[in-house]
Amino acid sequence: MSPPPPIRRRGVMLVLSSPSGAGKTTLSRLLLEREAGRLEMSVSVTTRARRPSEMDGRDYHFIDLARFDQMVQRGELLEWAEVFGNRYGTPRDAVEGALTAERDVLFDIDWQGTQQLARSARRDLVSVFILPPSYEELRRRLTTRAQDSAEVIDGRMAKAADEMSHYDEYDYIVVNKDVQESVDQVHAILKAERSRRERLVTVPAFVAALKG
Amino acid sequence: MSPPPPIRRRGVMLVLSSPSGAGKTTLSRLLLEREAGRLEMSVSVTTRARRPSEMDGRDYHFIDLARFDQMVQRGELLEWAEVFGNRYGTPRDAVEGALTAERDVLFDIDWQGTQQLARSARRDLVSVFILPPSYEELRRRLTTRAQDSAEVIDGRMAKAADEMSHYDEYDYIVVNKDVQESVDQVHAILKAERSRRERLVTVPAFVAALKG
Repeated sequence: MSPPPPIRRRGVMLVLSSPSGAGKTTLSRLLLEREAGRLEMSVSVTTRARRPSEMDGRDYHFIDLARFDQMVQRGELLEWAEVFGNRYGTPRDAVEGALTAERDVLFDIDWQGTQQLARSARRDLVSVFILPPSYEELRRRLTTRAQDSAEVIDGRMAKAADEMSHYDEYDYIVVNKDVQESVDQVHAILKAERSRRERLVTVPAFVAALKG
Repeated sequence: MSPPPPIRRRGVMLVLSSPSGAGKTTLSRLLLEREAGRLEMSVSVTTRARRPSEMDGRDYHFIDLARFDQMVQRGELLEWAEVFGNRYGTPRDAVEGALTAERDVLFDIDWQGTQQLARSARRDLVSVFILPPSYEELRRRLTTRAQDSAEVIDGRMAKAADEMSHYDEYDYIVVNKDVQESVDQVHAILKAERSRRERLVTVPAFVAALKG
C-alpha cells in the first residue's frame, strides 16, 4: 500500500486591521517577505486614478465605474466601499484561486471591510487586530510632522479611538510593542490556522487510508 | 499618563490526543522542554497503586477510592474515567490555578476525556489530534517486538483505527511525519491561541487606556 497523499488544505484569508499608527504596514511587509510564495497580498480594484508611483495589477487593478458596478452586480466582489468618492473592492476570483491552490491571502482592510468579508467568507477568514502599545506611543506615531497642530493630532487620535472600538469583532489581538515579536506572533497565528481541521479538506480520505 | 499594564490572559488548556503509535509522548516531552515554566503537564489523580518508578505528585497524585469518590461528588474533577478497574481524573483546582496565573496546561488524554473536558471547560480548551503519516508507519510503530504476532498487531491497528475515528471532534490536526516539524506546528498553535481575543481578559481596560 502506498502512503496516502499529503492532506490538502484551503488557504487562509488573513485580515490585519488596526488604527493608523499601530505599525500594520511594516508588519504586513515583513510577514509577506517571510512567507514569499505562500502568502500574497490581496490586490483591490479601484475607480480612482492611478498615481505615478503605482503599478496596475500590483498596487491596484484600476478600472472604470461601469466595470466596477458590473462587478458589484455580478457578485464578483467579496467586499467593497466608497472613500472620498472613489470605490474600492476585493475581487472574489483572485482570492478563490489562491485559496484553492493552498496559498494564503493577506488583507489590509478596516473593520467595515472585515465585517463584509466575514459575511461572504466566514469559514476562510482569520482576523487579527493590531493595537499600539500605549497612548503616548500612538500619539507619537500620529505626529508625522513637527508642525502638526494639537487639533490635527487630536483628530487623528479620535479617529484611532473610533477604529479601536471594533477590536472585539476580531479573532486575535496583537499588541505591537516590538515589530519582530509582533511579526512572530502573527506568523504563529497563520501557521496555526493552516492546521485547523475545517481547512484540511482531504482529512477524511487520509484517515481512511490510515485505517488500511 | 503611564503606559497601560500589559494585557493579562487566561492560560490555554492544550489537549493532545492520538492513536497509540502516532508519536505523541515524544512530542509532548519536547513541547514541555521548549515551554518550561510556561507550560505544565496536568497531573491526574488515580486510585491505582504507585509503581516503583513513579513519584507521587509528579506522575500522579495517588489517592484512595473514598477520596476519589469525594472529589467526584464535590465536582473537583474536570473529567474522570475508569480503566481496568482503576480510576483516573483531572483535578480542577490545579488547572484553574495555572490558567489564572497565565500558565498553560498540557493534557495527554483520549477522545472520551477530551469530550468531558470540553463540557466543563470549552472556552479554555484547544484540542489537537496527532495522526501518523501512513498506515505502514503506524503498523511499524505498533510492532514493538519482533515476536509480536500478526493478530496482536492487527488488534492494535483496530484500536488505533477506532481512536482515529474521532479526529473530527478536534480543533487542529497535525500529521506527525517529522517530530521537529510537528513540535514546531503544535508550538505555533499554542503561541497563536495565547493571543485569541476571548483569552485576553484585560483588553477592554487596555483599549480604554489607549483612547486616553
